[in-house]
Order: sequence, then structure tokens, then C-alpha cells
Amino acid sequence: MTTIDEKLAERGLTLPKAAPPLASYVPYIQSRNLIFISGQLPFQDGNIVQGRLGENMSVENGAKAAEACALGIVAQIKAALNGDFGRIRDLVKLEGFVACTPDFTDHPEVVNGASDLMADLFCQRGQHCRTAVGVPSLPRGAAVEVAAIFSVD
Amino acid sequence: MTTIDEKLAERGLTLPKAAPPLASYVPYIQSRNLIFISGQLPFQDGNIVQGRLGENMSVENGAKAAEACALGIVAQIKAALNGDFGRIRDLVKLEGFVACTPDFTDHPEVVNGASDLMADLFCQRGQHCRTAVGVPSLPRGAAVEVAAIFSVD
Amino acid sequence: MTTIDEKLAERGLTLPKAAPPLASYVPYIQSRNLIFISGQLPFQDGNIVQGRLGENMSVENGAKAAEACALGIVAQIKAALNGDFGRIRDLVKLEGFVACTPDFTDHPEVVNGASDLMADLFCQRGQHCRTAVGVPSLPRGAAVEVAAIFSVD
Repeated sequence: MTTIDEKLAERGLTLPKAAPPLASYVPYIQSRNLIFISGQLPFQDGNIVQGRLGENMSVENGAKAAEACALGIVAQIKAALNGDFGRIRDLVKLEGFVACTPDFTDHPEVVNGASDLMADLFCQRGQHCRTAVGVPSLPRGAAVEVAAIFSVD
Repeated sequence: MTTIDEKLAERGLTLPKAAPPLASYVPYIQSRNLIFISGQLPFQDGNIVQGRLGENMSVENGAKAAEACALGIVAQIKAALNGDFGRIRDLVKLEGFVACTPDFTDHPEVVNGASDLMADLFCQRGQHCRTAVGVPSLPRGAAVEVAAIFSVD
Repeated sequence: MTTIDEKLAERGLTLPKAAPPLASYVPYIQSRNLIFISGQLPFQDGNIVQGRLGENMSVENGAKAAEACALGIVAQIKAALNGDFGRIRDLVKLEGFVACTPDFTDHPEVVNGASDLMADLFCQRGQHCRTAVGVPSLPRGAAVEVAAIFSVD
């Protein structure tokens, strides 16, 4: 069976170190069978991917930013589970926030960058419900922010 | 006892077919006693209701759009429960996102279109907590998006 | 042991009366071990604190508005638990929405006004995961809205 790390390698993706929060909170909290993951910003080469969809970033690059957020989520759930991805029962929900202009309409295609990675990595268990909405701006000028809820055994 | 379908008929409302998601995710996920419903867009006659509050849509029409989102939520929970609305213990939360201008202030009145329908249909069990916030834009130019969490037996 | 009320007094803070919602919903819902709190607006002397970060409100005042939202959350969880703060197991999540301009980037510092108060009041149990995002506008022109999820015994 292909492991999550192998699947990431096949896609040329590297799991970032689980990012510390930018502020006075923690990256994840478990309550019984649910693990809540704080909103993750997109990092590339250690820098936050900045931009605004509909203004200075293409949908394709927005989807890559969302994928980078998802990588951050995977890093956090890995830390929360001490590396045991097998304890994941379901990715329950993704909350996708897209920095964009008032006339932007392709939020689904952007957040798909996160959703597709999750479905690829976790298959059936990676199917999730989600929200995808626009926002005028995000912390540090980030292009996308994605939070998550997992259910675990 | 009046059924949900009868209550909808009294209000001249028809439950839409549970809408497939616009992207690579699923409409609902159950984790133990909680069912999370993906953000629903407002459909009317098969088309997404577009607009921006404070610019080109009245509060009244915004409330109707929110009600259409709520109908989508009802259709999804019906599908999730194989039609057995009696298994709903509580509508736990509605998350309302209103496409609007920076000077718009009547988000509560808009999202009430969803909240009021839920309270009408499910009575005590339809009382819920909620967030209501503005956004610059939503998928496909939708005027409103509403997501939900139910607890079920 | 210092009580929550004593800690608030030390900071010169007074718990507001648990605010009734502005619309047709309820301030909190418990589902098993989780209590969901509706989005709280910032009140000062009975009035909603209005403003837009990056335009007419400093980050410092934004953080005070977020703290006022957090006080509203504390008032609601106190009501939900009949005053027994000892039943709180964890503040699971804060959802922070900051009314701001497209070029604003200090959302974390604003929402810290809420996060810091929670960590001060509830110590280890007050550590939480969170989202912090910008929005063009909030109900009644509020500067900040914060919702919460607690786990309780």
C-alpha cells in the first residue's frame, strides 16, 4: 500500500514542518473523536504566498496556494497523530477563504487545490464537506487560508 | 402532525433536488451524532441567485436567497437521513455568508431568511446558533452561501 | 485559586449581560460535549463598536473590539453552564472575522485581543485553534465578530 509520504513524493510535494501559529493560539485541538485544525496559510520556500484572486493571481496559482494550505493541514494532523495517518477516519470539513476581488467567481476552482490533494492522499476518507468563500484580505497578505476538521479513531 | 413536506407546501416552497457540489467534495459528512452540510448556494429555477447586497439586491431579496440556501440544506439533510427528518435532534449551527458592499449593515436580516425557515420547519429543534458575516464575493456570483451542522439520533 | 470573575476584575473588565441575538436564532447550542456559541459582536457601554481596520480603526482598538467579543463569549458560556466555569474542558476553536480593507494584513494581532483574554482567563483550557480572516462588513457596522466552540464535561 502506498503511504501518504510516498503519495506526496510522487506529486513532488514535501510536507512542511508543522507551522507554529502566527499568534496566541495552538495549531490543533482534539475533542473526543474530532480534531480541529487552525486556519493554515500557504507557505512556499518558507514564505507566505501572497496575492488576490481576480487582481494579481491566476486561478491556477490560487489552486496551488490552496494546495500549500492543505499541505500545512496534513503536517498538523500528522503532528497531532504522532505520524499515524491510519487513525484518520474522515476529513470532515474544509473551510476555504480566498482573498479576492468583488467580481471574482471561481472560488471553487481555487479551493479545489486543497480538496483534490486531500482526496488524492486519503481516498474515500479524504472526501469532505466544505465552505468556499471570498474575503477582502487575509493575515500577512496571504492568498488563501484553509482550516479543517478531522474525525479520528 | 404536519410533516416537513406539508409545511414546505403551505409556504409554496418546493424542495430542490439535493444539489451536487460544484467541485471535488461531498455535500455532507456524518461523524457520530453530527452531520456537517457543505455550503449551499441559492438556486431558483435551476439557476444560482446572483447579486451583491448594498449594490444591486434588496434586503428582502437577499433574505429570499438565504431561504433558498436553507432549502438546499433541508434537501441535503433529507438525503443524508434517507428522508427521516424525525432523526434530527437539533440544527446546531448555520454559517451565513452574505456577498455585500463594505457599507452594508443588515446581514442579520438577510440570514434570517434561512434562520426563519429552519425555525418554522423544525420548531424547537430548528433553533440554532449562527454566524452572519459579509464577503466580497461567492462562488459563481451567488448572493448568499449558508452551511450547517445538525445533531441527529 | 483566582476565579474567572476575579481575573476579569483584575483586568478592569466587566462581563456583559449575555447578549440576546440580533435575529431569529439562539446564543448557544449544546450537542453532547460540545457547546457552540453564536458569533458575538463587540459591545462597549451598550453600543456596538463600529469600524474598519485599515481605514478608521487602529490595530490596538481592533484588538480591544475582539476582546469585547470574547467577553460576550464568556458571558454566553457562563449562561450555558449556569455559572459553573469548572465544567469547561477546552475552548476548542475561535472563529474571528475582522471588518477591514483589502490591503489590511494584521488580522492575527486583532483577533489576539480575543485569544489572549481566553488564554488569560482559562489558562491551559483556554488554548484553542482558530481562524482569522478579513470581511468587507459585519452586522450593524461592527468591527469584529467572534464565534466559539467549547468542549465541556
